[in-house]
Amino acid sequence: MTSAVKMTDTPAHPLDRLSALLGGDMVQVNGVILRNMESDVALIPQLAAYLIAAGGKRIRPLLTLACTRLYNDHSPRPYGLAASVEFIHTATLLHDDVVDESVERRGKASANVVFGNQASVLVGDFLFSRAFQLMVADGSLEVLRILSTASAVISEGEVLQLAAANNVATNMDDYNAIIAAKTAALFAAACEIGPVIAGAGGDAQRAMRDFGHHLGMAFQIADDILDYTADQSRLGKTVGDDFREGKLTAPVILALAEASDEERAFWTRTMAERRQTEADLAAAQAILTQHDAFSRGLALARGYAEKAQQALMTAPAGDLRDALADVLAFSIDRAY
Amino acid sequence: MTSAVKMTDTPAHPLDRLSALLGGDMVQVNGVILRNMESDVALIPQLAAYLIAAGGKRIRPLLTLACTRLYNDHSPRPYGLAASVEFIHTATLLHDDVVDESVERRGKASANVVFGNQASVLVGDFLFSRAFQLMVADGSLEVLRILSTASAVISEGEVLQLAAANNVATNMDDYNAIIAAKTAALFAAACEIGPVIAGAGGDAQRAMRDFGHHLGMAFQIADDILDYTADQSRLGKTVGDDFREGKLTAPVILALAEASDEERAFWTRTMAERRQTEADLAAAQAILTQHDAFSRGLALARGYAEKAQQALMTAPAGDLRDALADVLAFSIDRAY
Repeated sequence: MTSAVKMTDTPAHPLDRLSALLGGDMVQVNGVILRNMESDVALIPQLAAYLIAAGGKRIRPLLTLACTRLYNDHSPRPYGLAASVEFIHTATLLHDDVVDESVERRGKASANVVFGNQASVLVGDFLFSRAFQLMVADGSLEVLRILSTASAVISEGEVLQLAAANNVATNMDDYNAIIAAKTAALFAAACEIGPVIAGAGGDAQRAMRDFGHHLGMAFQIADDILDYTADQSRLGKTVGDDFREGKLTAPVILALAEASDEERAFWTRTMAERRQTEADLAAAQAILTQHDAFSRGLALARGYAEKAQQALMTAPAGDLRDALADVLAFSIDRAY
Repeated sequence: MTSAVKMTDTPAHPLDRLSALLGGDMVQVNGVILRNMESDVALIPQLAAYLIAAGGKRIRPLLTLACTRLYNDHSPRPYGLAASVEFIHTATLLHDDVVDESVERRGKASANVVFGNQASVLVGDFLFSRAFQLMVADGSLEVLRILSTASAVISEGEVLQLAAANNVATNMDDYNAIIAAKTAALFAAACEIGPVIAGAGGDAQRAMRDFGHHLGMAFQIADDILDYTADQSRLGKTVGDDFREGKLTAPVILALAEASDEERAFWTRTMAERRQTEADLAAAQAILTQHDAFSRGLALARGYAEKAQQALMTAPAGDLRDALADVLAFSIDRAY
């Protein structure tokens, strides 16, 4: 964070600005995260510490905090629940990396490579259980309902994605269903529990769920575009992962819909049959550019962002709402 | 079940007798299980149906039902929670088989072999989430506390077991800690929630937790002996799994404590270095027999069973308590 270097400046990154607005809240959440990764079983805090050191922007717990404070609740209640949301996310990352046979995450060797698939599966299970223990400690059955439902939907989305992998017949409806489940469900839940904690009522709860859902959709589409367009050193993830794994995402699906026979043969060979040469990623990028697949994908993301913005505008006006609007804009900006 | 063939006879298997005593309760639980394995994502019910067809005695949900009825609660409440307990168990089985690289479970190819490791990890996550949704639908925060804690402890136990694998320095304290976490914790929780549902008070809750814990310890030790001694067609699992995986269990740990240099070299080669020949399992069985490792292991299991029996005797007398005592006795008998 640049804010650590120049304390008087406004942080450049919208998530850092949001975090700064929330005062010491994220420090408290990080404390809960660290305390709850403790275990007598040494491998658990070791693997957990590795994940923490790998960083990540903690966007989901930030959303929970912001959506609680937005409705004027300034209690410590969201700390445990924000940590719970981050634990669910971390557990799914650990299991995803095993499922995808990933070798890198956030610019570092992924946990499954360093600690093995076995430890990644089991520590994922541990973090998932801890998430529910934190919710139980909070005691809201409504929050438990929201987050247990989101967890089930996430795993359905992951299974759906697995079934769609290497299938060049995947269409935008399939894709939207997958990202709604695997990504937007947890964004929606992270935001929805804010007004629940604050006791802000059903309208606020629905508005923040809508905000989170649409933000999550925009975020994931932008992420899937970045997988082809990003500056690798800036993205902190391996460019071309989706291509190499044969994961059909928005840009490819859009380009496939108007593909020539030759292009269709290219996508079938590289993504369905996974027979790839070193030159294929660059060729894929060229085809996607030629079909305006990135700008058309971005337009879809912008459509979701507009809906998210509409939902956000029903929340009380102020610095926090403005900061959330900036995070929303950034979720797409980063994909340019 | 033989009871399906001859309805008038008393079922021979203690778990079938317990099930018969509970009337239609297990039919209800099986209905909840089937309904909650449904998903629009086809692979989930497919994999789930495969697991159901593979059978299993459903001992954990039976314990939840029995420990509720034992305290005179005859409501439908335990159905969802018994299903929840079975889902947690099934999720850990799915993940275990991935972690252990198992090829067989209950006499059938294991799910990871048929559907792949990826689907097993993700469907395990789905069932785990469903378990929490079922608890939330019930609405008892105390039950949620008990089962979320048990889940966290189970994954700690699995990580502990992973760390101890192939380590011939594993002692009985390590082993007891592992099986207390990976097995006895869920038995204890399955039993403890019975009196919680029935509102039977703290003494009953503690007694059933103790009963479940000690039953689970006895059950796991017996299971670990059976892994060397069972008639493969009867056990419905591959004999020698623990040996091949280098999993240090009670009989081996007991034999290692008094091993000759030659025997120690044998265990080091076969279990630590996992260099095994076809004749090694028979050699291991011979060494274990020579050191009375099976009968000494059984004596330990009997010690736990006695403590379980003491806890059980504090519960109201009757057919149900007698049937639970039979299940307890059987948990060891099957290891002869």
